[in-house]
Parts: sequence; C-alpha cells; structure tokens
Amino acid sequence: MKTITVNVSKTYEITIGAGILNEAGAIVRKAAGGQSAAIVADDNVSALYGRRLADSLAQNGYRVTQYVFPHGESSKNAETFLSIINYLAEEKLSRKDVAVALGGGVVGDLAGFAAACYMRGIRFVQIPTTLLAAVDSSVGGKTAVNLAAGKNLAGAFYQPDAVICDISLLSTLPGEAFKDGCAEVIKYGVIADRALFESLRTPVHTQLEDVIARCVEIKRGIVTEDEFEGGARKLLNFGHTVGHAIELLSEYKISHGQAVAAGMAIVTRAAVRMGMCEADCLRDVLQMLRRYELPENTPYEAGRLAGACLSDKKREGDGLTMIFPVEIGKCVLKKIPVSELEAVIRMGLEEFS
Amino acid sequence: MKTITVNVSKTYEITIGAGILNEAGAIVRKAAGGQSAAIVADDNVSALYGRRLADSLAQNGYRVTQYVFPHGESSKNAETFLSIINYLAEEKLSRKDVAVALGGGVVGDLAGFAAACYMRGIRFVQIPTTLLAAVDSSVGGKTAVNLAAGKNLAGAFYQPDAVICDISLLSTLPGEAFKDGCAEVIKYGVIADRALFESLRTPVHTQLEDVIARCVEIKRGIVTEDEFEGGARKLLNFGHTVGHAIELLSEYKISHGQAVAAGMAIVTRAAVRMGMCEADCLRDVLQMLRRYELPENTPYEAGRLAGACLSDKKREGDGLTMIFPVEIGKCVLKKIPVSELEAVIRMGLEEFS
Repeated sequence: MKTITVNVSKTYEITIGAGILNEAGAIVRKAAGGQSAAIVADDNVSALYGRRLADSLAQNGYRVTQYVFPHGESSKNAETFLSIINYLAEEKLSRKDVAVALGGGVVGDLAGFAAACYMRGIRFVQIPTTLLAAVDSSVGGKTAVNLAAGKNLAGAFYQPDAVICDISLLSTLPGEAFKDGCAEVIKYGVIADRALFESLRTPVHTQLEDVIARCVEIKRGIVTEDEFEGGARKLLNFGHTVGHAIELLSEYKISHGQAVAAGMAIVTRAAVRMGMCEADCLRDVLQMLRRYELPENTPYEAGRLAGACLSDKKREGDGLTMIFPVEIGKCVLKKIPVSELEAVIRMGLEEFS
Repeated sequence: MKTITVNVSKTYEITIGAGILNEAGAIVRKAAGGQSAAIVADDNVSALYGRRLADSLAQNGYRVTQYVFPHGESSKNAETFLSIINYLAEEKLSRKDVAVALGGGVVGDLAGFAAACYMRGIRFVQIPTTLLAAVDSSVGGKTAVNLAAGKNLAGAFYQPDAVICDISLLSTLPGEAFKDGCAEVIKYGVIADRALFESLRTPVHTQLEDVIARCVEIKRGIVTEDEFEGGARKLLNFGHTVGHAIELLSEYKISHGQAVAAGMAIVTRAAVRMGMCEADCLRDVLQMLRRYELPENTPYEAGRLAGACLSDKKREGDGLTMIFPVEIGKCVLKKIPVSELEAVIRMGLEEFS
C-alpha cells in the first residue's frame, strides 16, 4: 500500500493498494467526517461494488444513500449534474456531509462538480475504478460536464478530501477501458519521466501499484505548481487538444484514451516536421502505442480537426497552446496562432514516407 | 469616488462613485483584459443601462454581446444558469474573456455562478444596480441559484475581478427595492459598527457613497478573515436564517430585505428573552426598522418557520448556528440544537407586553 500526500488549496491523501475498498469507510471517516455519505455511481459499478462500499461506510457510522445513473459518457451532462444536486438536497445532506464518487472518470467528473456546487461545496471523496481515473481524473481537482457546444465546458476546480485507489477493482475492467488508461500512462512518460516510459515495455497490469503511484506523483508535482492551469499544468494536455477534437468529431464513439493516443502521435509527428524533436522520439512513441494496441492516427481531415479544436475551451483568443515533445520525458508549450493550426495538424496527419 | 481593495484568494477593487458607468469599459479592461465581454442583465436593467455599458466596453476594445433574461427572483434557477453557460459557449468566449453582471442580486448570483463554471471559471465583473447588491451580494464571492428544495442550494464561491458601483444608478430604484437594501445596511450596523447604525438616523439616500463604502469595508473585513464561511462570516447571516425561512414560506412573495428585517427583529427579541442582550438594544433595532418602513414580525408560526430553517443549507447536522446581538455593533454566534429551534423562534415571535 502506498500513500501520496497532495498539497494544493486543500491537503489530501491518495491511498493506493489492493483490497482497500473494505477500508474505505475508515478512510472517509478520518478524511471527511460528517454524518451522511452519498455514494454516486453508474449502474455497472454500483452492481459490482456499491454494496461493499455502503457496508464499509455504514460500519464507520455513516447514514448511507446511493445515487445511481446509467453508465457511459452520454450521462456526463448538465441534466445528470442537476439531478445529483437535487438528490443531495432531497437527502438533506449538510455542508459537513460527504459525497463519494465510485467509478471511472465520468462519475468522478459528475459527482465532483455536484459536490463543488451543492451548498457551494461539500466534502468529497473519489474512489476510481478505472486505470484512467486512477492516474488522471481522480488527481488534480478538475471536474466538469459536457455541453452541446463541447466537452467539459461547464465545471469547477474542486479538490477531493481523499482518493482511495483499490487496484484490485481495476482488474475487472474490460480490455478496451484498460487500454484507455494505458494511453494516459504513456503520456506521463513522454511529458515528464523517461524511466517510467521505458518501464512500460513491461506490461502495466503486472506493476499496477508502482505505475499508478508514479503517474500520480508526476501529476501531483504539476498540479501543485499550477493548480488553476495557468501554465505548467497545460503539459498534461499533451495529445489532448487534438484528442478532444477527435472525440468530438466521432460524437464520442472513439474513446478518450484512443483519441489521446492518436493525438499524441499526431502532435509528435508535427513536432518532428517542425524540427522540435528527433525522429527517434516519434519512433519510440509509435512503438509504445502499438505495444498497447492504441491508434497512431485518425481518419478525420486537418480542416475539420482544426475547427473542432477551436471549439475547445483551451482556445485563448487568437491562438491555442499546444504541447510538443522535445524528447521522451520532456515536452514544451507552444502557442499556435489560429491561422496556422490547420497546417500544424496536417503535418501531424501525414505519415513519413 | 472611493476605491476599496479586497484581498482574498483573488485581489480586486470595488469602485464606488456617481456616474462611473461611463468609465466601466476602462475599469473592466484594466482589471480583466480579454477580447470579448458578455453583459448579463435582466430585461428591465438592460433597457435602462445596457446600451451605455455596451458602448463603454466597445470603446475599450471589447467585442460586446449581451444575454438578457426576464427580471425577478423566479429567473434565479438552474435553467437560466445553464442557458447563460450555453450562451457563453455559443458566443465562443474563452477563459480569458469576461462576463459582466449588470443588475441586482439575481443577476450577480446567476452570472457569477455561470462565470465560475463556464470552462471552470472565466473573468467576471459585477456592476450592482441596487443598494442591496451594492452592499451585499456584489462583495464576498457568493454566487448561487435556487432549487425546488430551497434557496441558493447550488452555487460557488467565486470572486469577481472588479466591482463597479455607480450610485447614480441606484436612484432609479422603486421604493420597495431600496428599502430592501436598507435592511442589509441596518444589519451591518448591528453586527459590526454602532457609529454606522447611529448615522442611519439620517436617511441613507442622502449619504449613499459613504454608507455603501462603510458596509463594503465591514464585509471586506469579515470575508477576508473567513472567505469560505467557516466561522466569522456567519455573522453576516444575522436575521437571515429566519429571514430565508420567511421567504421560503411566502414562496418568495415577501422580499429578501423585508424577510431579513423581520428575521433581525425576531432574533433580537429572542436574544433579550434569553438574557443575551438588554431590552434597549431591541428598542433601537425596532425603531430603526420602523424608520425605514421595514417589518418587525411575521405571521408564520414558529413550527413552520423552524421546519423551513432546517431545509436551509446552513443546517449543520444536529443544529444550526444562529447570530444574536449582545449590543448594537456586536453579535455572537450560537449553535441552536434542532430540538430547541422552534422554542427559540417562538420567543422571538411574541411581542413583549
């Protein structure tokens, strides 16, 4: 078992280990206190683990209620968000009570945003059940829902009181969802840690606790430096600007991890063309994506991708900050003017002959 | 003209003066920057001042858009909140652009909450056009909307980048709305400043700039000490716990100021009965309420008021913190157990014989 302390506007602990769902009640009691705990989960995850979590919370003195919504990214919208807030009000949770997100990134984003807004903020604990949520969305305090106009357009920066990562829950993942998480793990290697990147030649699922802890440490370092995404935190968006555009154009039929994988390949290809990094960096990235059966390109055209990028909230007036690798373990931010965006993406789409 | 600097998680300036709406564009430019400015206003205020504000913003280089919604507390709901966020997305505002709330407390709460959540937070400027908003809701960063289950149940703490208070706009208020503001001004006197309280024997409208500045300074002091309402900030709720219950029971037909006035009288009466303050404190409070033609009681019964209080977000598990005066200029917090709440309110409802 590993414990990682995060010091941002709130100080909280991330606990990583096998079988620790049974200790969740005690961890929540210590970190968040309160009298009532509202579990928020989708129907799939609730059926698998809802009862175990509820029992652990009840054993630690909580009145436990549970809000269950249909699984899938399509639930991550304003209606579900408002429905959760209304549920918390009906259950008469007070400011000192706690909402517990049990599940992947969708539930973390939804429940976190609802916890941030209900009564202007109640206690909040995340229990990620996917590799993606464990290494990404459960650290750093970003919460959001999708609007018709784009992904994650309404949300809040809201830090949890605790994160509980039981790695034995992650093994029940279907293969595709696990691969999605691997795309984010590869991202951490490229942006910040060559040793982590190299270690991924050994399959992630054989070294889950170590890999998750390392990714979380990297994200902690970046988020501590830049909680509200003024600068360094943008590094975490490597592959994500183009990735989000791919998700949007696919109407979210292409998963986040698959889209980010293609985004990383496209941006790395563009970086080589622009002389920002060597060809062997691209070769290493593409080899690693293939190792985890992740895509390295997208069928969408440069013009449509650029248009979708500009609807993303990362747009800053007349440009967009993109993240390019200079070598494995080191990336840089570069502002691309709106007028040059399509050309940059086009460079990234073309395979080298 | 007076300028008051607020130092909380964000540092910003409150500018108070006559005729400064014409300088709004320059103040917004300096405080918030950005390329686009979205004015948010209700239909009444937009018709009166929307054009002048838009011109001032345009003269300072902004692309100006305006979102207008129907006036009244009934617009302060989740639907209008989401509609504003969708509007900001359609108008393609970026994180560096600015939302400008022009109006009273309703627009400040709605636009502030939308600005807090759109892209997890964009720039935000408040231009209060009511006395109530000038002394209360435009300082301190509280934003919220009402839910079916209760008032202000969804919201955020979100500080503005600037507050611009043109006191010449306040003179166009209908009488009732101005009296609402006077109730809050009296509150500041009771909780924190006997000299302010005494000065209110001279009509508020003859000394607007000074009175607003003093109220804002008091609120700044309290909010700086306790931005997220852990303790001292609760002082600002003097009269508000019972006041919110009155508003709820009246289905918001009784205005905020009228309800708070009755709430202050009820709580002060209870304080005398409980031996917490002298009878002359009650006499002074009631005299001042009469001077501003504000109510000093409510027809609702103690049991119903207590029930409505418990649906308020200020409930803390087994009790509720209420604010009682010990003398004019000094109040204390006291936790009232749920089981005693009705009895305390009943003491406050009964006139002294």
